[in-house]
Amino acid sequence: MSYCAEIIAVGTEILLGDIVNTDAQTVARALGELGINVYYNTVVGDNPERLRAAVEIAKSRADIIITTGGLGPTFDDLTKQTLAECFGKKLVLNETELEKIRGFFAKIGREMTKNNEQQAYLPEDCVVLENDWGTAPGCAFFAENTHVLMLPGPPRECKPMVQYRVIPYLKQLSDASLVSHELKIFGMGESSVEDKVRHIAEHMTNPTLAPYAKEGETLLRVTGRAENEEAADALTRPVIDQVYEILGEYIYGMDVPSLADVVFRLLKEQGLTLATAESCTGGLLSKMITDLPGVSEVFLGGVCAYQNEIKEQLLGVPHEILETKGAVSEECAAALAEGARKTLGADIGVGITGIAGPGGGTEEKPVGTVYVAVANEKETRVVKSRGHRDRGTIRNMAALTALDQIRRLVAK
Amino acid sequence: MSYCAEIIAVGTEILLGDIVNTDAQTVARALGELGINVYYNTVVGDNPERLRAAVEIAKSRADIIITTGGLGPTFDDLTKQTLAECFGKKLVLNETELEKIRGFFAKIGREMTKNNEQQAYLPEDCVVLENDWGTAPGCAFFAENTHVLMLPGPPRECKPMVQYRVIPYLKQLSDASLVSHELKIFGMGESSVEDKVRHIAEHMTNPTLAPYAKEGETLLRVTGRAENEEAADALTRPVIDQVYEILGEYIYGMDVPSLADVVFRLLKEQGLTLATAESCTGGLLSKMITDLPGVSEVFLGGVCAYQNEIKEQLLGVPHEILETKGAVSEECAAALAEGARKTLGADIGVGITGIAGPGGGTEEKPVGTVYVAVANEKETRVVKSRGHRDRGTIRNMAALTALDQIRRLVAK
Repeated sequence: MSYCAEIIAVGTEILLGDIVNTDAQTVARALGELGINVYYNTVVGDNPERLRAAVEIAKSRADIIITTGGLGPTFDDLTKQTLAECFGKKLVLNETELEKIRGFFAKIGREMTKNNEQQAYLPEDCVVLENDWGTAPGCAFFAENTHVLMLPGPPRECKPMVQYRVIPYLKQLSDASLVSHELKIFGMGESSVEDKVRHIAEHMTNPTLAPYAKEGETLLRVTGRAENEEAADALTRPVIDQVYEILGEYIYGMDVPSLADVVFRLLKEQGLTLATAESCTGGLLSKMITDLPGVSEVFLGGVCAYQNEIKEQLLGVPHEILETKGAVSEECAAALAEGARKTLGADIGVGITGIAGPGGGTEEKPVGTVYVAVANEKETRVVKSRGHRDRGTIRNMAALTALDQIRRLVAK
Repeated sequence: MSYCAEIIAVGTEILLGDIVNTDAQTVARALGELGINVYYNTVVGDNPERLRAAVEIAKSRADIIITTGGLGPTFDDLTKQTLAECFGKKLVLNETELEKIRGFFAKIGREMTKNNEQQAYLPEDCVVLENDWGTAPGCAFFAENTHVLMLPGPPRECKPMVQYRVIPYLKQLSDASLVSHELKIFGMGESSVEDKVRHIAEHMTNPTLAPYAKEGETLLRVTGRAENEEAADALTRPVIDQVYEILGEYIYGMDVPSLADVVFRLLKEQGLTLATAESCTGGLLSKMITDLPGVSEVFLGGVCAYQNEIKEQLLGVPHEILETKGAVSEECAAALAEGARKTLGADIGVGITGIAGPGGGTEEKPVGTVYVAVANEKETRVVKSRGHRDRGTIRNMAALTALDQIRRLVAK
């Protein structure tokens, strides 16, 4: 049989928009991998009546209910009580979990306040989903033909709980195999990508081909469904080949975590080192690169040259360029890239300079004018970044363009 | 009367977890400011039947339905058709909007593909919510005692649409005034904060006092409700005073956007400049600072000294310190802060060094050991950052600790 799940996030802070619902994303992705359909997500506040109403609706349309949030120690954490009531269960104290909570506080050297005990009360006859990443355990039970799983809300707890507790728990329920591959594209917008692949995507049902816009990138997902993984995977392959033929070098990778990661692998394979010089991105590029563990193998460091003096003094950008061409110019970008290479002693240097706005634009150089340069021993290439709209987008596009230029320089 | 709204996000890419539902946050915040209750958010895929079912449920429990997503040009964008059907309306071509879409493509110099015309079909007798930030217009109508508003999905369109279209549209409906103030806290966890304010929070109903955990920070929201803004605000004031007495300098600001912003204002007021030297945070701190427009007034730049050679050569960290104390040491953090000050010619220098993990930890210096130093002309202070758990958290906490240390150094 094919299961259908509903995710219910409990928390006034999500409902009111204080935080975004990343847990729903975490859970939904895992369910997708397991071939379990998700038709609805619901968000409800820390209010037992409305949570009860949401659970009743979910019961009527889903076989699996997964809640996130409301397991904590504070007076508005009411998920376990409410779900237990909805399914006619009592909460009972779990001594083992109580001990673990005590141990957790001892380990981090903080006092355990009385309210933390609440977290050890769990629905009778449930399976405890142990939480090694926080204090509130999750739990799961089967009642009234519904599988119920409750997970803690903080994303840094919810994420590993999904990976190490929920997936193994649900795997035993699922039968059909779903295999997805993601083709990641930089430098071409979603509607252009869709236009180019429309003729192959439109009438397919298995596998499916769907484009998604991500911040500055486009992603094409090819998903096959069959009785086992191998067969599902085989369905996707001819479509993937077709897409590669159409989009070519715009595809920076398949099933890769990010453009930064692809660049890291390429540099590592070729034993090359990298240094950055950033003006308008102010460290965003080096931040993206150093998000990756172990990147010190290839990344030496960078200079955030926000002021012109620093461009000159630390990176040797000729005063003349700044004077005649300006800090936002192809020439300055090239000098930054070359300066980063030389000053920091790297094989490849990157330079970014531009106007991220909202102020500082002119008619000749409007907000969004950004030059990105990459340099190695043999050549220096400069391109214009395509970002527009707002400061965040402009900076993000500039940093991604830099990564893409490194990829193209190194991959050739 | 008091209105109650439901937000319905339409999009398989949200349901499957490809993107997080930031639009719900944007809309919910705006509704909160208007004093409109939100009891449920729902997410549904690009499927007309399930969207119809979700709309029917929303109709039964809300006076206002706001949808996000599914207004675009692709074949799976079905929100307008479905909502129009649910309320017995037809879609009609809006020539003005069609012209605008044509103009948009002309302006950005891209070809307008045929599918884009779909976006100009709107429910009969609706109010057009003009979209100056993208191609798909929003719309609003009142039918069957329900206010329906439809907004585009891309966050960079949805956000301004909410601010400039939805808020003015809804303002005429709302009567009760809600005033919220946010006290932002750094250096004390949510449960400690809750424990300290519990005695005042627990039995209050108006105003309310609620703690929220944010990545590395805690937020206390005080909300008053009354017949007008002034009266609502007056309700919050005595509670705010009480909280300030209890938490003191842990509160870095009230109704401020971020710690980085507070630091920027403080430096600007005092005419001080700043430079950074980052090791394990790899540019995250300078990225956070330069997220702020106009920050070049106070921020000169920074060095991301990922490798030890760069710490020595660019920032003058004594070789002896690296040799005897190691790069992850109080002494190195201090030398980085002082080096940033001197090399970049700033009034205040910041240095961050540590082990962000997951590799690189030792028994003496486990993953999560991070030293943060701030230096001005007179003194250098070094503290240990409290971050643990994972690379992202450790880096984020280190950067926030640095900002908090600048704040404390400058505010005294």
